[in-house]
Amino acid sequence: MRINQRIKKILSHYESDNPGTKGNLARILMHGKLGGTGRMVILPVDQGFEHGPARSFAINPQAYDPHYHYQMAVDASLSAFAAPLGLLEAGADTFAGAIPTILKINSSNSLTPSGDDANQAVTGSVADALRLGCSAIGFTIYPGSNYTHDMFEELREIAEEAKSCGLAVIVWSYVRGNMSKAGEGGIDTIAYGAHMACLLGAHVIKVKLPSDYLENEAAKKEYLAQKIDISTLTARVRHVVETCFQGRRLVVFSGGDAKDLEGVYDDARAIRDGGGNGSIIGRNAFRRPKNEALMMLDTIIKIYQGKL
Amino acid sequence: MRINQRIKKILSHYESDNPGTKGNLARILMHGKLGGTGRMVILPVDQGFEHGPARSFAINPQAYDPHYHYQMAVDASLSAFAAPLGLLEAGADTFAGAIPTILKINSSNSLTPSGDDANQAVTGSVADALRLGCSAIGFTIYPGSNYTHDMFEELREIAEEAKSCGLAVIVWSYVRGNMSKAGEGGIDTIAYGAHMACLLGAHVIKVKLPSDYLENEAAKKEYLAQKIDISTLTARVRHVVETCFQGRRLVVFSGGDAKDLEGVYDDARAIRDGGGNGSIIGRNAFRRPKNEALMMLDTIIKIYQGKL
Amino acid sequence: MRINQRIKKILSHYESDNPGTKGNLARILMHGKLGGTGRMVILPVDQGFEHGPARSFAINPQAYDPHYHYQMAVDASLSAFAAPLGLLEAGADTFAGAIPTILKINSSNSLTPSGDDANQAVTGSVADALRLGCSAIGFTIYPGSNYTHDMFEELREIAEEAKSCGLAVIVWSYVRGNMSKAGEGGIDTIAYGAHMACLLGAHVIKVKLPSDYLENEAAKKEYLAQKIDISTLTARVRHVVETCFQGRRLVVFSGGDAKDLEGVYDDARAIRDGGGNGSIIGRNAFRRPKNEALMMLDTIIKIYQGKL
Amino acid sequence: MRINQRIKKILSHYESDNPGTKGNLARILMHGKLGGTGRMVILPVDQGFEHGPARSFAINPQAYDPHYHYQMAVDASLSAFAAPLGLLEAGADTFAGAIPTILKINSSNSLTPSGDDANQAVTGSVADALRLGCSAIGFTIYPGSNYTHDMFEELREIAEEAKSCGLAVIVWSYVRGNMSKAGEGGIDTIAYGAHMACLLGAHVIKVKLPSDYLENEAAKKEYLAQKIDISTLTARVRHVVETCFQGRRLVVFSGGDAKDLEGVYDDARAIRDGGGNGSIIGRNAFRRPKNEALMMLDTIIKIYQGKL
Amino acid sequence: MRINQRIKKILSHYESDNPGTKGNLARILMHGKLGGTGRMVILPVDQGFEHGPARSFAINPQAYDPHYHYQMAVDASLSAFAAPLGLLEAGADTFAGAIPTILKINSSNSLTPSGDDANQAVTGSVADALRLGCSAIGFTIYPGSNYTHDMFEELREIAEEAKSCGLAVIVWSYVRGNMSKAGEGGIDTIAYGAHMACLLGAHVIKVKLPSDYLENEAAKKEYLAQKIDISTLTARVRHVVETCFQGRRLVVFSGGDAKDLEGVYDDARAIRDGGGNGSIIGRNAFRRPKNEALMMLDTIIKIYQGKL
Repeated sequence: MRINQRIKKILSHYESDNPGTKGNLARILMHGKLGGTGRMVILPVDQGFEHGPARSFAINPQAYDPHYHYQMAVDASLSAFAAPLGLLEAGADTFAGAIPTILKINSSNSLTPSGDDANQAVTGSVADALRLGCSAIGFTIYPGSNYTHDMFEELREIAEEAKSCGLAVIVWSYVRGNMSKAGEGGIDTIAYGAHMACLLGAHVIKVKLPSDYLENEAAKKEYLAQKIDISTLTARVRHVVETCFQGRRLVVFSGGDAKDLEGVYDDARAIRDGGGNGSIIGRNAFRRPKNEALMMLDTIIKIYQGKL
Repeated sequence: MRINQRIKKILSHYESDNPGTKGNLARILMHGKLGGTGRMVILPVDQGFEHGPARSFAINPQAYDPHYHYQMAVDASLSAFAAPLGLLEAGADTFAGAIPTILKINSSNSLTPSGDDANQAVTGSVADALRLGCSAIGFTIYPGSNYTHDMFEELREIAEEAKSCGLAVIVWSYVRGNMSKAGEGGIDTIAYGAHMACLLGAHVIKVKLPSDYLENEAAKKEYLAQKIDISTLTARVRHVVETCFQGRRLVVFSGGDAKDLEGVYDDARAIRDGGGNGSIIGRNAFRRPKNEALMMLDTIIKIYQGKL
Repeated sequence: MRINQRIKKILSHYESDNPGTKGNLARILMHGKLGGTGRMVILPVDQGFEHGPARSFAINPQAYDPHYHYQMAVDASLSAFAAPLGLLEAGADTFAGAIPTILKINSSNSLTPSGDDANQAVTGSVADALRLGCSAIGFTIYPGSNYTHDMFEELREIAEEAKSCGLAVIVWSYVRGNMSKAGEGGIDTIAYGAHMACLLGAHVIKVKLPSDYLENEAAKKEYLAQKIDISTLTARVRHVVETCFQGRRLVVFSGGDAKDLEGVYDDARAIRDGGGNGSIIGRNAFRRPKNEALMMLDTIIKIYQGKL
Repeated sequence: MRINQRIKKILSHYESDNPGTKGNLARILMHGKLGGTGRMVILPVDQGFEHGPARSFAINPQAYDPHYHYQMAVDASLSAFAAPLGLLEAGADTFAGAIPTILKINSSNSLTPSGDDANQAVTGSVADALRLGCSAIGFTIYPGSNYTHDMFEELREIAEEAKSCGLAVIVWSYVRGNMSKAGEGGIDTIAYGAHMACLLGAHVIKVKLPSDYLENEAAKKEYLAQKIDISTLTARVRHVVETCFQGRRLVVFSGGDAKDLEGVYDDARAIRDGGGNGSIIGRNAFRRPKNEALMMLDTIIKIYQGKL
Repeated sequence: MRINQRIKKILSHYESDNPGTKGNLARILMHGKLGGTGRMVILPVDQGFEHGPARSFAINPQAYDPHYHYQMAVDASLSAFAAPLGLLEAGADTFAGAIPTILKINSSNSLTPSGDDANQAVTGSVADALRLGCSAIGFTIYPGSNYTHDMFEELREIAEEAKSCGLAVIVWSYVRGNMSKAGEGGIDTIAYGAHMACLLGAHVIKVKLPSDYLENEAAKKEYLAQKIDISTLTARVRHVVETCFQGRRLVVFSGGDAKDLEGVYDDARAIRDGGGNGSIIGRNAFRRPKNEALMMLDTIIKIYQGKL
């Protein structure tokens, strides 16, 4: 694996990391069709935890099989595959070395009440990630929830261990709890959540694509006073990237609910044009027939390559 | 012990496990009259914890003696015997090597209030399982309870330790709390609970036989939209097996409350025909006279063998 | 110390224990006038914790001195002496080797509110028991309290450590909380509490002498349906012994509040005739003048010897 | 340091302690003008934590300096000096070897609400005590508070570690919470708190001088029935000493709020005549001008020497 | 680095610290234009955590980049630079050795509700500080909050570890919760908070500049009775320094909200004249254009040098 200048530049931003962690970041950034571009498309499959198996996979029953997702990530030549413990265990040997994997280390479910008390259970460990040959761990935080401090402290402990073992740390930063529903998708709170993930030491930050809604009154005033451009999705992506240490940290975006193909492609273009580092696409991939999903992923990759 | 092709196939699904754990799974799958068939009948005796001794054993007072249950499991040539710490300790030496044992590592009782706060106390350890010569640990989770996250996290920690020591992990997944009474037995929640046990890294999942009730509104829509067949017990077993990584994980079912023999046999046939891996039968066994219980267990075994 | 056949038989029921623990059980069972009979009389002095010093000892002020109790247990030739940390520390050297001791490892007090939240503080450790030369640890559980699970989990951890160090584990199982006052002394709940102590891995179980009250509706039905004899104290002791693995575990009974001598003796006869393994007698001993107490203890011993 | 018979006798009561702990007890008991008498006067300075600096020291501004207190304890030839971590750290080198020190290991403050939830924060460790050359640790318990069990468990853990390292354990036992204001100073509750400190394994117990108030109804009956003399302060001190294992444990008393000199001296005489082992005097010392304080401490010492 | 007499005197007050910690204190005290004066100006950048990125940096977008702040601290020749984990990680290599750094080890945010429950999440560790080459850790306590005891106990544990590793401990002591809004800035509570930070073992204490408001009734009486001068900012600084072991501990002050330059300079003069050891200036620095900020910092330094 010959690391190109673009990736060397990105790796140079991780000033305090050991060669093991930089090597694993490089592994993801150099893998698949987007290898070497500084962009990534990651397939996450944790919706069985979050929404249950039928709501996730019944539309495409092959997707009940963990191997289906591993194979999809390999066939689409994506950057990495992320899933909870049991799902990774079920294909770790068959697909060893075939694609970088990310152990999603905490998980929520829709049977447990959440709201302001939104939280996740820690369901995997750094030791699990190491024995399964993963390149990174994934951890969700809910800034705004009553469990904010607890989740930050869990992340602190797990991230310290992961970094010391040469793993990369990807933080899913979802603002929620103690705010309006619109606020969970608003630009000020999402940028705040992204910035805190950086401060917590994440290597890669994943957030939702933000709307132009402003939740916090004091923030609203500042956005107006400083004339921060949040008028287009591209501008909002650019703002989030800026709040992530002005581009010193990798930021990827989730597409949100399943939508039509053009919507997915428009999102990718906005992420690209705003300087974002890629997409995490789950339901929009595995809830379509495989061929359709592969075609869609290929199109997204071409968009990130600047070909479309 | 010569492992046949059917069992080798099953073991191959546990891609990430060490030879110790695979060996213990093989030990259970090759033991007794169902050895080598991929089906299991397991005798669990933890009702003294859950309902108290008189309600469990007074009808058949020999059953107050731990040796009675060990002997029953041996005489019936079952696949394994599961019980809490003290009960296993009371026969561990006499029956050493006679039948694979499973240390039930957490336990509930009916003196402690539960409802939405349903929980269990951890009453055994991996070290206990090892010193007692067990092949597996058993752990109950209550998805839906306010203790869901806590129980998942306890399981994560204990399962990681158990796997590293070469033990198998059997998860009793009982949905309850924050749902209707019917929901605790409904197909969508039970399938969800089974799927989460898989995601949590269980080797064997135990759930109740589900009714055709659908608890969750969003799930209900999906079951209708995707025309998931839940009309018969057989179809529902098939659905649960599908949600357990499309058969990559072993699934066994409990019979629920004591019932007449034909009911028990019908359940076994549905489990068999739906692709389930067997039964966990407690009260239906030890609350009958021993001869009658042995005859019943033999009939169930014959059903799983396809002879009845 | 030549272990006789009766004691060998009892020790053989502890199938999973190491020679250290069996040796300590033997030490208690072979000590004093009841040595070799399979019966025990144990002197516990933790009432200073539970009720305060004046209510416990002012009636007999010599009893403020820890040596008084050690000496009483030695002079009466009892089986063992049980007390909290500080009290054992105050006589551990003077009476080293003179009588088996039990470190009571958790303690309650009457300044702290309890009710449904009844709990005890852990006030000693296995390391303390070892450095003080104890043969066993004593631990109280309150099945029914809101702290039931916590106390079970504390016991699990401490008992595992104690057994690994060759100590015996004696569980004071007092049902309370979330039940009627009568229920705390009723036969169904006390038998349930005794059975759970067995399942938790206790070597010796201590419960109150039960009344014929039945607390739980479902249990009540079963007691009637199975015609369980609870009409006499002797029958109720027999039932409790039965629920303790049909006699595979040692069961001792407390006498409850101070009472007249005939009452104490009647209790001992009922324990003996019902197959119980002895008495734990505290207040009824040290709240009488020493000579009177010694005479009483001698009479109880004679009852257990079958001489009275 | 030649240990005299009186001190040897006292040390012999600590039957289970290692030579390190006995040596440190001896160090305190042999230090200063009261060395060898079995009496102690200890200077504690933790009022800056409890009431804040201005309320503690503004009246005598030299007392803002930690060296002032060290020097006072040395100049007055007291038995020991007790303070929280930071205060000891600020003079530990200058006064190394000059006077035995006690690290007060938990602390309360008056900004945090208390009442029935009275608690203290653990602000030092056994490792701190060792590196600062202390002879003992000091720990406060609040029997009666909702945190009673927690504080007992913290003490258990810290005391076990301290004893294993050869440190002495001094317990400040202050009954409070879930009782009347008068009850916090009443004889029955204070004696109960002192007795529990003994049961928890304290070497030295510190309590408030008790009033003749009786808080608990059941205790009240027993005090009357047994005709326990609580009519004078001397009698009440004697009762407290009795409840501390009949004199097998050292008991010192605090003077309470600042008062006039005669009041302080009367207290000391009552402690002496009741068999108490001395005084812990803080505010009454450092809130007076230094010369006045030295004169007062000298008078108290003479009282304990039986000269006044 | 030749340590001058003034700094040697200051270091001599840290009597219990190891050479590693003294060396790190010296490193800060000898660095930059104020090196050797006993005064410090520290740049803290944790407002992205506390108020979010836009409210902190949008006014001066270069400040989104961690290198901007490192460079500012270097260019202004300050004493040290303090920031949370991720921010330090992003420049630790580029600026290694260029300026002493302080890892801010806990952090608050404005998405999580606080009030009486004000708390911070622990987001860094001593191990992090060591691998990043920091000279000190920074830890915030909120005396008065319902989490007071918890924060004190977290600090105790982290400070003990930090000291044992040769790091200095800087405590941000912000009184809040269970008091009036004015009380959070009042002289009695701030002095109390500063004193407790000393008692907790801090090497350097950071507090807000206090107003002449008196929150606590008992304290108010004492301030009046002892005629403590709190009439001017200089007098109040002097009082705070006095409560910090009469100058044996270093005390620095924060400027509070952004204000005009003259206000900032007046604050510095009052700190200097009252005997304070310097300023921690964040928002007032990075929310101005860089040149203006450098000029302001240079003026403050000159004030501390006594030149203005």
